[in-house]
Amino acid sequence: MNIAVVGCTGVVGTKVLQVLSRLDFDFENLYLFASKKSAGKTVFFKGRALVVEELNLKNLQNKKINIAFFVAGSQVATAYAHHFLRGGAVVIDNSSYFRLQNKVPLVVPEVNPEDLFLHNGIIANPNCSTIMLMPVLSMLDKVYGVKRVVVSTYQAVSGTGAKGIEALTSGQLGFTNNDFPIRLYSNAVPVIGTINKNGYTEEENKIILESKKILHRPDLKITATAVRVPCFNCHSQSVNVELCKKYEFNRLIAQLSTINGVQLKQQNLTENSIPNVPTTLDADGGFDIFLGRVRSDNSNKKALNFWLVFDNLLKGAALNAVQIAKLVVKNNLY
Amino acid sequence: MNIAVVGCTGVVGTKVLQVLSRLDFDFENLYLFASKKSAGKTVFFKGRALVVEELNLKNLQNKKINIAFFVAGSQVATAYAHHFLRGGAVVIDNSSYFRLQNKVPLVVPEVNPEDLFLHNGIIANPNCSTIMLMPVLSMLDKVYGVKRVVVSTYQAVSGTGAKGIEALTSGQLGFTNNDFPIRLYSNAVPVIGTINKNGYTEEENKIILESKKILHRPDLKITATAVRVPCFNCHSQSVNVELCKKYEFNRLIAQLSTINGVQLKQQNLTENSIPNVPTTLDADGGFDIFLGRVRSDNSNKKALNFWLVFDNLLKGAALNAVQIAKLVVKNNLY
Repeated sequence: MNIAVVGCTGVVGTKVLQVLSRLDFDFENLYLFASKKSAGKTVFFKGRALVVEELNLKNLQNKKINIAFFVAGSQVATAYAHHFLRGGAVVIDNSSYFRLQNKVPLVVPEVNPEDLFLHNGIIANPNCSTIMLMPVLSMLDKVYGVKRVVVSTYQAVSGTGAKGIEALTSGQLGFTNNDFPIRLYSNAVPVIGTINKNGYTEEENKIILESKKILHRPDLKITATAVRVPCFNCHSQSVNVELCKKYEFNRLIAQLSTINGVQLKQQNLTENSIPNVPTTLDADGGFDIFLGRVRSDNSNKKALNFWLVFDNLLKGAALNAVQIAKLVVKNNLY
Repeated sequence: MNIAVVGCTGVVGTKVLQVLSRLDFDFENLYLFASKKSAGKTVFFKGRALVVEELNLKNLQNKKINIAFFVAGSQVATAYAHHFLRGGAVVIDNSSYFRLQNKVPLVVPEVNPEDLFLHNGIIANPNCSTIMLMPVLSMLDKVYGVKRVVVSTYQAVSGTGAKGIEALTSGQLGFTNNDFPIRLYSNAVPVIGTINKNGYTEEENKIILESKKILHRPDLKITATAVRVPCFNCHSQSVNVELCKKYEFNRLIAQLSTINGVQLKQQNLTENSIPNVPTTLDADGGFDIFLGRVRSDNSNKKALNFWLVFDNLLKGAALNAVQIAKLVVKNNLY
């Protein structure tokens, strides 16, 4: 088993290496690729010094790669994924490029692992904000049927990579998408990605379209507002879900506490103690999705409100990709 | 016409003085009251040096006050409002104490100025997050009928007073309510005020209950999630509104552009230019409520999504109070 990480020096690439180490992912060789700028750098992995290679066809020659993590954006995925496929690798791509393509599984391992069996070499890692929502929404859909979802996000600057983190630190202009320079410090910016003709941003469309694919609910009614907030790391969401069936609140809480990968941190309303709610800082560095503030919607008996928060670089990107890889290995899908 | 500001040295009190100056509010004497700690301090108003007096009964004697702005919290309002009333003043109170009482008008001047005529000496200034939502929601309700509202807030630390601003600056623990010390820096905290038995926070209940009163819609279906974000000043809201009637999008945009006190900053979707969206920093120091990201809800034909942002210390507190005072004077309601 040989592994490659394409884009290993980026914010997400660094996290892929951390997760491979934390999860004791078993392999023989680890090949690290990045742009020319980073080639030659030394990266430490479990005490071993590894040298970063430039991503080009020459450096791919004579390497037998079984699983390649692509965390270098859509352009690199478009240009290089098929070269890795031709060499026999399974590509797990974190960019948006392949996600909505018909024969590409888009997978959150706790939700739709069965979709992996249909892969043709490429498996897409969903958008971070989509991943966060899927485990809870999937359970609610299975048990009660989901009628409609309204989600508002609170997204950290780490989602924009190293430049966003630097911009928040320095107070200088950052970018909420490629074309929109804006101060991130002390600002809430309701634009992530370019704004499409339908008035929704790329990020909002990702949440809407990817959710339908992952849940196999092309008819799912879901609308989203995506907002950048001045937090360094960890995304949050305020979610309102209308269900098809009535629910009994205590039973719902019990059901929510059993979701794989989700940690319920729910306020006990019988005591007047310090609020037990998950915040951005609670989620930093952890593998779980935190769920809290679950409450009946006072405007609709069949609806509920809740709050989600998770580490967008881990479960929102690197961890989800490595979990996919583990399933690929376990099921001999490479 | 003599004016008093009770709590003049606080974050909102300071803004009341600024607004009185910016709006050229006409009066003879300005009396400044605060706690013992601030008594004796000098405050400059339009070039005049005024001395802050301790709020006590002795210092109220022999002062004829026509309008008193109370911006010192519920405890001071409870203890002193009736003394001002007895002296013949109209009290405009910014605390939550009187807001939901039957004979106390709760007023956003652009929305329900007629309610002022029923006052019995006390007029309540609504909660900041309620004020922000009212002008747009009132127009939508009048023209289309509002069926249901789902709102998620992005609230700045200035709403917690000087201590919150200091905590965000220093990175030290701040308070999202009296009992819950938490780091505000780089954190999104989904709790504002204590959590009530129904699972909703004080802030969420204020939005829900005050909206019903201001719009005279006790049956209004509205649910809210209130979140503190690490911005120094200006609150934002992501709002989803289901209407009773269908709407034509361009006509709706035209209608939204005519709301008094609301500045529409809507993306032109025919061009691929820099996004024209209002952010927290755009609203800082301004009097208007900014409205943007208006778009049809893809999950419901009769619904829409939009984004609001305003200066919570100005239109969310001081400006709204002074606007109320101007109406009181104009209509001889003192």
